[in-house]
Amino acid sequence: MSDDNPLVIFTPSGKRGRFAKGTPILTAARQLGVDLDSVCGGRGICSKCQVAPAYGAFPKHGVTVAADALSEWNAVEERYDQKRGLPKGRRLGCQATVQGDVVIDVPPESQVHRQVVRKRAEVRDITMNPSVRLFYVEVEEPDMHEPSGDLERLRKALDEQWQLADVHADLSILQSLQPALRKGEWKVTCAVHLGDGENPPRVMHIWPGFYEGSVFGLAVDLGSTTIAAHLCDLQSGAVVASSGVMNPQIRFGEDLMSRVSYSMMNPGGADEMTRAVREGMNGLFDQVAAEAEIDKGLIMDAVFVCNPVMHHLFLGIDPFELGQAPFALATSSALRLRASELDLALHPAARVYILPCIAGHVGADAAAVALSEAPDKSEDLVLVVDVGTNAEILLGNREKVLACSSPTGPAFEGAQISSGQRAAPGAIERVEIDPATKEPRFKVIGSDLWSDEAGFDEAIAGTGITGICGSGIIEMVAEMRLAGIVDGPGLIGSPQQTGTARCELDGRTYSYLVHDGTAEGGPRITVTNRDIREIQMAKAALYSGARLLMDKFGVDRVDRVVLAGAFGAHISPKHAMVLGMIPDAPLEKVTSAGNAAGTGARIALLNRAARGEIEETVRRIHKVETAIEPRFQEHFVNASNIPNAVEPFTTLNSIVTLPDVNFNAGDGSEGGGGRRRGRRRG
Amino acid sequence: MSDDNPLVIFTPSGKRGRFAKGTPILTAARQLGVDLDSVCGGRGICSKCQVAPAYGAFPKHGVTVAADALSEWNAVEERYDQKRGLPKGRRLGCQATVQGDVVIDVPPESQVHRQVVRKRAEVRDITMNPSVRLFYVEVEEPDMHEPSGDLERLRKALDEQWQLADVHADLSILQSLQPALRKGEWKVTCAVHLGDGENPPRVMHIWPGFYEGSVFGLAVDLGSTTIAAHLCDLQSGAVVASSGVMNPQIRFGEDLMSRVSYSMMNPGGADEMTRAVREGMNGLFDQVAAEAEIDKGLIMDAVFVCNPVMHHLFLGIDPFELGQAPFALATSSALRLRASELDLALHPAARVYILPCIAGHVGADAAAVALSEAPDKSEDLVLVVDVGTNAEILLGNREKVLACSSPTGPAFEGAQISSGQRAAPGAIERVEIDPATKEPRFKVIGSDLWSDEAGFDEAIAGTGITGICGSGIIEMVAEMRLAGIVDGPGLIGSPQQTGTARCELDGRTYSYLVHDGTAEGGPRITVTNRDIREIQMAKAALYSGARLLMDKFGVDRVDRVVLAGAFGAHISPKHAMVLGMIPDAPLEKVTSAGNAAGTGARIALLNRAARGEIEETVRRIHKVETAIEPRFQEHFVNASNIPNAVEPFTTLNSIVTLPDVNFNAGDGSEGGGGRRRGRRRG
Repeated sequence: MSDDNPLVIFTPSGKRGRFAKGTPILTAARQLGVDLDSVCGGRGICSKCQVAPAYGAFPKHGVTVAADALSEWNAVEERYDQKRGLPKGRRLGCQATVQGDVVIDVPPESQVHRQVVRKRAEVRDITMNPSVRLFYVEVEEPDMHEPSGDLERLRKALDEQWQLADVHADLSILQSLQPALRKGEWKVTCAVHLGDGENPPRVMHIWPGFYEGSVFGLAVDLGSTTIAAHLCDLQSGAVVASSGVMNPQIRFGEDLMSRVSYSMMNPGGADEMTRAVREGMNGLFDQVAAEAEIDKGLIMDAVFVCNPVMHHLFLGIDPFELGQAPFALATSSALRLRASELDLALHPAARVYILPCIAGHVGADAAAVALSEAPDKSEDLVLVVDVGTNAEILLGNREKVLACSSPTGPAFEGAQISSGQRAAPGAIERVEIDPATKEPRFKVIGSDLWSDEAGFDEAIAGTGITGICGSGIIEMVAEMRLAGIVDGPGLIGSPQQTGTARCELDGRTYSYLVHDGTAEGGPRITVTNRDIREIQMAKAALYSGARLLMDKFGVDRVDRVVLAGAFGAHISPKHAMVLGMIPDAPLEKVTSAGNAAGTGARIALLNRAARGEIEETVRRIHKVETAIEPRFQEHFVNASNIPNAVEPFTTLNSIVTLPDVNFNAGDGSEGGGGRRRGRRRG
Repeated sequence: MSDDNPLVIFTPSGKRGRFAKGTPILTAARQLGVDLDSVCGGRGICSKCQVAPAYGAFPKHGVTVAADALSEWNAVEERYDQKRGLPKGRRLGCQATVQGDVVIDVPPESQVHRQVVRKRAEVRDITMNPSVRLFYVEVEEPDMHEPSGDLERLRKALDEQWQLADVHADLSILQSLQPALRKGEWKVTCAVHLGDGENPPRVMHIWPGFYEGSVFGLAVDLGSTTIAAHLCDLQSGAVVASSGVMNPQIRFGEDLMSRVSYSMMNPGGADEMTRAVREGMNGLFDQVAAEAEIDKGLIMDAVFVCNPVMHHLFLGIDPFELGQAPFALATSSALRLRASELDLALHPAARVYILPCIAGHVGADAAAVALSEAPDKSEDLVLVVDVGTNAEILLGNREKVLACSSPTGPAFEGAQISSGQRAAPGAIERVEIDPATKEPRFKVIGSDLWSDEAGFDEAIAGTGITGICGSGIIEMVAEMRLAGIVDGPGLIGSPQQTGTARCELDGRTYSYLVHDGTAEGGPRITVTNRDIREIQMAKAALYSGARLLMDKFGVDRVDRVVLAGAFGAHISPKHAMVLGMIPDAPLEKVTSAGNAAGTGARIALLNRAARGEIEETVRRIHKVETAIEPRFQEHFVNASNIPNAVEPFTTLNSIVTLPDVNFNAGDGSEGGGGRRRGRRRG
C-alpha cells in the first residue's frame, strides 16, 4: 500500500488503510478486518454490504473526502436500487471502488456481528454470531477430464469463496444437490451449520441461485407449567414471533415430583410424558411460525432451557434418578442434537442445543439465567433468584459463583393456597390493607383499577374476582403482617385481637376475608392460617438457600438482588422483603430480570460463542446441595417466622415498621415449623 | 528400570525391557508398546491378554528362564480356568507378574492388531483395527457433593482407563445409561465407535457388567446383479457367515442403463429402486445373521462397495446425471453415515462406510479392488481388470496408477448371446474343440466331467444342458478361432470352408452347433455369428480400455494381469488372450483375484486405517475417460478382429497357433465394426 494510494477510513471501527484506486470497498473492509456483511460474496446480489460514504472535510480523521472519492454509481447498483430500493446515500460495498481518500460508515445492519439491542439497558447486548449462516457460491461445472463429484466442487467453492474448509453434507443434501446446482446454473445459496466441538461444518440446505429469504431459530423455555418460544431471524437477530402454551405434561401431574412419581408408578409413563411435551412443542412451533408467516421448514436451529426433570423427560430419559438422592443426572453437559432426534418437525437437518445443567436440581434454565444475568462478570456481589416451584439461586461476582436449588414448593405459584390460582384474568395480583381499618383494596389481572375505585366492578364484569395468584398472595401476607393481622410467628389474630370482623374463626385458627363474591355467585376469597403457613415454608426455603450461599461465600449481605422468572417479574420487592423471602438489600438494588432463562436461550441461539462460554462458566460454578447442608436446615427453621420490626430488616426500617404483635405466644408450633423438611420438587 | 530388575522379552516382537519384580506382564507389554489385547483393562475378566511364557535357556535372547520367573498361578486365573478353560501353558497377562528374567510369547489371538490371514498368499494380510471396539470400565458413583452427570463420569472412566478422550454419546445411550450403570453396579462394557475425520468417538452401546460376546460388521459388495455380504466378527476378524441375494432392482432393468432409464421415465422410479435395494439388503442381513446365529442388533458397522449407479440408487440419489455426459457424480468422496439413514435394520447406532468413487464410471467397487490388489504398492506394472457389464481397469505401480471404465456390455455375463445364460447349474462353462474334427467337448456347471466322459449324462441328469454362461462363451469363441471355425475378422465358416456339418446356414451367415438337446426336450445350443460379434465388441472394449491406459502410461506391455470379479475368477487366461481380451503377458503372470471388490470391503471393515489410505490412493489415481479419448475409438476399431497368429500374440506364439483363415475377405463389415460406439452401461 503505497503512500500515494487513497486512504480509506471505516467508521465506527476507526480502522484505516491505503488501497490502490479501483479497490472495492468490500475488499478494503475485508483486508482491514472491518465487520462488513455479505451473503453473495461481493457479486452485487445480496445488498448486505451496504455502506454510507461521508463527504466533505473530516478534521478528526485528517482527510477531506471529494465528491468523486468513490467510483460512479454503476449498473449493478442501479439495477438493485430499481428492484429493491437502496436507501439514499448508500452504496454497495462490493461495487463502489476507491478513487480518493474516503470515510466509509458501516451501518449496523451491514455488520455480520451486529448487536441485537435488548430491552433492559443494564444487560449486555447480544452479538450476532449464529450457528447457521447463508452463503452464496458459484460452483465449477463438471468436466469429464476432472471427474470430481458435484459435492466436492461445492466444497471447493465454499472453501475458496468463503474460507469454509472441510464442510460436510447430509445425505439429504446429496439427494438434492444435483438438481439444485443445475437449476441455479451452478450458482446456489447454502445454509451452513458452522460446526461445533462435536460436529464439523455441514451444509443443511441448498437453494438454486441466490436465496433472498432468511433462516430462523427458536429460543425455547421449557417450564413445568408453560413452554414459551421466541422465533428469531438468524440473520437480523430480530424476534419475529413469540408464543407460549401450557406444558401438556400437566395432565400427568401439576408439579415435577408428581410427574416423576407418575413415571415410577406407570410403566411407559415417562415415554408418554416425553411424547406429550414433544407434541406440545410441535404445536407451539406451528403457532409461532404461523404468527411470523414463515415456513416451519426454515427453522434450522433451536435452543432449549429447562429444569433437570423437564430436561430428562424432553430427551426421553426416565427421570427416576432425579427423584431420589443423590439426584444423579444422566448427563450434565450441554447437548448438540438433531431436532429430528427429538421428533421436532422443523427443517429436516435442524439442530438443537440444550444448555448444560448445573446440578441435579439446578438445570439448564439456571444456566440460561447465568448466561443472561452473568453474575460471573459482575463487579458487585449479586444474588440471582429464579423463583418457581423450585427456586434456583445464584450468588457471585467476577471472583466466583455459587449455585443451589431450594424446594420452595408450588405456593408461590398460587397452588396449595385455599383461594390460590394461576396468574389469569380475575386473579388478585396487588393488595393494600389499611393498617387502621384492616380493610383491603386490591387489583385483579385484567384491570388497572383498584377495587375501591370507580368503574372497578364494570372493568372486571367479564371475569369476576376468582382467586389470588402467586404474586398476589405474597403481597397479601406481607400486607396482613404490616397491618398487624398476622404476627411474627405467622398466626392470624382473632376479631378481638385485630379489631376486624374480617378475621373469622376457621377451625382452631382464624382466616382473613378478602372478598365475598357469593352474592354475585362468585367465590368467597379468604386467607387461611394454613395459607400463611404454606407461604412461610416457601419463603423460608428460598431465604435459607440464599443465606446458605452467603455463608459459603463468607458474606452476610449482598450488593444487589435480581429476581428472575415470570414470578420475579411480578413480585413486589418491598413485599418480598417484608415477608423475608430474600436477604436484605437496598430496595433500589432489587430488580426484576423478567424471563432471564428465555433471554439466556436467545443469547445462546444468536451467538454460538456464548454456548462455549456458558459451558465453561457452568463448569466453574460451585454447586451447593441444600439437602445435605445442615446449615440449610438451621436457616430454614430460623426463617419460618415473618420478621419482626428489628433484625433482619435494617435497611427497610426507614420505610417499613412491622407491628410487634403476638397472637399466640404459648403455641407457635401449630401447622408450621417442623413440617416438610424433605426436598420438595414441583 | 534398574539393571538389577528382571528382563522381560516379548516374542514375536522381540521388544524387551527391565521391570521391577511384581510388575504384571500386561503392564510391561503396554509400557513397551507390545500389542497385547485387553477388553477389561487388566481386571482378570476378559482373558484377552493370554500369554505363553517360555522356560529354559534362550541363548538367542541371552537369558535363562527359571520355573519361578513368573508369579504363581493365582485365584483369578484358577477361577477363569474353571469357568472357561485356559489353554495349557497360558497365563493371564494381567495376573502373572514378573519375578525373574522371562520370555513371553504373545499368541496371535491375544494381539489387538492381529493379522487376519487371507486365502491368497500373494496379497497382504488384513491388520485388525476395526472402527468399533469394546471397552470395560468401572465408573465412579454419583456424589451429591460433586454433581456431575452419569455420562460425564463414564467419559472420565473411558479417558482414565482407556485413554479415550472426548467420547460422545448418542441420545439412545443417554436413555439407557442410568439403568445400565446401576444394574452393572457401576461396571459396564461399552461398544465405542472410535471416530473418524468427520465424527468424534462415540459410545454406541452399553452393557451392564462385563459383556462376554462380540460385535459384528458387514462387508457388502452391492452389484448390479447380486448383493453379497460377509458378516465378520469385529474382535477376531473371522468371517462368521457369507451370503448373497439377487439385486431386487433387476425387475426394473437387467443392466444399469436400463435402470437409469427407468428412473427417467417413471416419476418416483429412483425412489422405488432405492427402496427395493435397501429391502433386499435387509433381507440378506437377516439371512447372514441367522446363519451365524447372532442378533442383528449386534451388527455395528458395515462397509459397502458398488458401482456409481448402484451407489446413487442405494443412497437415494437420482442417477440421472450418470446417464449422460459429463457423467457427474453427486459425490465422489467416501461416505460415513448411520445405517438408519439408509433404512438398514442393524444396531440402531450402526455406522456405514462407503468407499470413494474414482469417477462417474469407476465406482467404489473399483476403489475396493484398488484397496485389495494395491497396484499403488506394486513393484511391477500390473493391469487389474474387473470384468463385469462395465469393465473397470486399473494400471499402475508404485509410481502412479491410472483408471478407466470400459463399456463391455453384458455379453461377458451371457446376456445378448443367443444361447447365453447366467452362471448356474446346466450352463456350459468349459469348452474344447478338436482342431481336426471340429467336434466340441464341454463341461457344465454342476459336474466335473467332460461331456465325452463316461457318466456325464447321469451327472447332469438333474439340470440338463441349458445354455452357455459368460466364461463358457469366451472359451467357446476362442476355441472356435483355434479350431479354424472362426476367422480373424470374426466370421464363422461354411460347412464347406470348415469341413463340419456343425456349421449351419443361419440367414446370411453361419452358426456353429454346440449341442442339440431337442431329442431330450432340451435346447439346441448354437453359437451364431451375431454372438461372435457381441463377444468381439465386448472384448474390443475391454482391450481398448487397457491399451488406452498403457498409452497414457507410456508402455506397450505390462508385467502382470490380475483378473478380478466373479467372472475373472472363472475365465481361462489362455482363452482370454486368444480372444484378445487382455494385452499380452506371460500366461503364468495372469492371475485371478476372485472377488477383489468384496475383499477390499472386508479390509475397510476390519481396518479403519485402510479407509483413509484408500481415500488418499483414490485422490492420487489418474482417471482416464474413455468416452472422450480419440485413441480409445482407434483401439476399439483395431481390436474388434480376433487376432491372427502373428502380432499381437508374441508371447503366446510358442504355445498357441491361430489358423490363418479368412472366410469372407470381401465383406468384413457385416454386423460388426461401426456399431455401438457410444458408451454402454449395464
